[in-house]
Amino acid sequence: MEKIQVDNAVVKQFRSLLQKENVAELEMQLSQMYAQDIALLIDRLPVEDSREILNLLSKDKVIKVLVEMEESDRAHFLSAYTPYEIANNFIEHMDSDDAAYLLNHLPNKIKEDVIGQLQDIEYASSLLSLTNYEEYTAGSLMALELVKVSINQTVAECIEEIRKQNENVDNIYVVYVVDDFERLMGIITLKNLLLAKPDFLVSEVYNSEVIAVPTAADSELVANLTKKYDLVVLPVVDVLGRLVGRITIDDVVDVIKEEADEDYQLMSGITSDVAPTDSIFDLSKARLPWLIIGLFGGIVSSRFLGVYESEIQIHPEMAFFIPLIAAMGGNVGVQSSAIVVQGLANDTLGTKNIGHKILKELRLALFNGLICAILILAYNLIFNDSVELALTVAIALITVIIFASVFGTFIPMFLNKVKIDPAIATGPFITTSNDLLGIVIYFSIGRLMYQTF
Amino acid sequence: MEKIQVDNAVVKQFRSLLQKENVAELEMQLSQMYAQDIALLIDRLPVEDSREILNLLSKDKVIKVLVEMEESDRAHFLSAYTPYEIANNFIEHMDSDDAAYLLNHLPNKIKEDVIGQLQDIEYASSLLSLTNYEEYTAGSLMALELVKVSINQTVAECIEEIRKQNENVDNIYVVYVVDDFERLMGIITLKNLLLAKPDFLVSEVYNSEVIAVPTAADSELVANLTKKYDLVVLPVVDVLGRLVGRITIDDVVDVIKEEADEDYQLMSGITSDVAPTDSIFDLSKARLPWLIIGLFGGIVSSRFLGVYESEIQIHPEMAFFIPLIAAMGGNVGVQSSAIVVQGLANDTLGTKNIGHKILKELRLALFNGLICAILILAYNLIFNDSVELALTVAIALITVIIFASVFGTFIPMFLNKVKIDPAIATGPFITTSNDLLGIVIYFSIGRLMYQTF
Repeated sequence: MEKIQVDNAVVKQFRSLLQKENVAELEMQLSQMYAQDIALLIDRLPVEDSREILNLLSKDKVIKVLVEMEESDRAHFLSAYTPYEIANNFIEHMDSDDAAYLLNHLPNKIKEDVIGQLQDIEYASSLLSLTNYEEYTAGSLMALELVKVSINQTVAECIEEIRKQNENVDNIYVVYVVDDFERLMGIITLKNLLLAKPDFLVSEVYNSEVIAVPTAADSELVANLTKKYDLVVLPVVDVLGRLVGRITIDDVVDVIKEEADEDYQLMSGITSDVAPTDSIFDLSKARLPWLIIGLFGGIVSSRFLGVYESEIQIHPEMAFFIPLIAAMGGNVGVQSSAIVVQGLANDTLGTKNIGHKILKELRLALFNGLICAILILAYNLIFNDSVELALTVAIALITVIIFASVFGTFIPMFLNKVKIDPAIATGPFITTSNDLLGIVIYFSIGRLMYQTF
Repeated sequence: MEKIQVDNAVVKQFRSLLQKENVAELEMQLSQMYAQDIALLIDRLPVEDSREILNLLSKDKVIKVLVEMEESDRAHFLSAYTPYEIANNFIEHMDSDDAAYLLNHLPNKIKEDVIGQLQDIEYASSLLSLTNYEEYTAGSLMALELVKVSINQTVAECIEEIRKQNENVDNIYVVYVVDDFERLMGIITLKNLLLAKPDFLVSEVYNSEVIAVPTAADSELVANLTKKYDLVVLPVVDVLGRLVGRITIDDVVDVIKEEADEDYQLMSGITSDVAPTDSIFDLSKARLPWLIIGLFGGIVSSRFLGVYESEIQIHPEMAFFIPLIAAMGGNVGVQSSAIVVQGLANDTLGTKNIGHKILKELRLALFNGLICAILILAYNLIFNDSVELALTVAIALITVIIFASVFGTFIPMFLNKVKIDPAIATGPFITTSNDLLGIVIYFSIGRLMYQTF
């Protein structure tokens, strides 16, 4: 059955159905949509319509949609419910990782009230501990729902166990094998269970090679292990080696995406962790520091240029190429640093070839610099009278490109060495320092040139 | 069992073991390493050592390591083998997606020779068609290995079928249900098979809700579907709806990572699809166009500034703040465009709030602009004599910040509307146009100011 995808026409149709209060048709349409698409639909409907849509859904589907919805829509929807209702209508029916996610996006007071109202005390206590794991750790990413069997059981007992535990777990992927102390011993795939004789022992068919992470492991490590070893699910153990949860690939994909977004934002001069729903003041906090670095760089540039005031007065045409020199330095610097930052992040800067790679970057800068310098020299010789200016701009340009390339290569490497995230070296930081460098080089060469000729 | 991770000490140890030709110890160490880590090790060893390491590995492990290795190392290793050996020692034992990947990274002539030397004609023909799918399509990402059952079978027959097909497939995840014409009808999870009675029919227990893609689907669509619907494996069908392959999440994760890397590079003014191993000329092709755009922008800037030659001669201090104005315009423009580009890529720019979001971006620009303008005004009033200059810089700065923010927001939206990748609007493109804009605004205000006072 083909499912409905959300586009403008679908949104329009739903608005008209809502206006006509055509509940039967609305329910029919909604039944043909995945939770993710209903969430997208709600994102595009006015808030009062969203509520009506959610009220038409089955309990099962509402909880799926809730997890996918935009935060502000969800907060608005939930605000109509008491903590008791939130706990027993929604949270209780969710997977623990989704429940923890939703709880962590509620105000602290409400979060505690909701957990306090859960009927299942054991689940409430697990959720409390789940919500207490620090953000960006394996603990905060894991779900408690998993299927585990004892190493002492037979395959038949094991299948019986899966039948019992099955209800809680949507996608099993793999069955975990634990010892009497709940310590993770290995895994057993469903395929192996399916194909093994019922009277075999788990200890005969399980695989002891299993990659696990402690609850405190950084989410970046989780993402890297998953990517590197092509994992679909990663078990999480406590300090005693006991199995406490598992992280599924869909959550890891979100982590990978978030990390890439962060790097992208950092490069554009936006310190991460802001949401579009944050206040102007919070948004500004993420951007203003980078602008002030730029401002400061601009002021230092102006001081440098002040030194050359008389040159500019005699040769105002020198000033014409300030933007060109500054921009080219910035552009080359960002190109070089981006390659290094990415290489460091992806661990592809193998030490074997590192010297070779830097040398190549320099040769590339020289090549690009030469072409740009020749182009600008030709332009100036044709369209400007001053040979001094033409030579100054061309020589300054190639010098700036080479320097910017060296800076762009080494600054992120240096930052990485001293354990600072090299990604901050891209964007405004590298542009600002290269602006400055460019101006110093340009005017030094200019002074020399005009004095010589 | 704890596995060995590659670091400098491990590399050193291996080099010494290789020197001593201590084969027993080498084999022991290698047996404790995952294929991915052996590939990392090889990446850090001289090429002749790499070959020795690979020759020590079991056939099973060599093929895993081969897929993970750096391209140049792999090419070097394979160059010692004839097409016949490559076909029968390596390709034949690989999963079809890995084999296709490896073949596609061989020179065209050798690729065809290798396929021609395969003993299993059916596999050779499948590989030939796999390697012919266009890059960045579902067809090029899929593997042919999968487990499928007929909709007319019983659960018991189905399990027997899995037992037969099992050998070819590492991770089953899910069993596909097809009709007599091999058309994909739905899926059945191993869990459901494990828990269903043997005499049940497949048609009673299978799930007809399955998301599939055609072979020609773009890899971006594959990534988006996987992310959106939290899939682990995605079936691929031909134009007749027949099941031809499946794409597993590990390959999708690679696609997601590659796409993020491309956007990152595009933002830093590097057109994608270059490898560090490419020639200087190829590398330059990816970067030079952006530098020439910058060069062109710089030349246009110089023409604009030429118009104000007399102003610069009379008030050379005007020139001091050219870098500041240009840099700030560029920085703000990149910040705004990055947010929009990311929002478009992640589909989080819901149309409901789009006006609201743009308005917020403008208010943010006004806020940041005001603070920066006040800071630079204060600085100039304290450290410079000219009130005209102080006012000019401050007013120009806030104007530039607002304009840059509007441009940065609308340009990527416009490009998206006319079906051009909005990511090209970040980086050099936006910086260059904002440089220009800034200079025009700055000098227009300056002329007005000096004429007024």
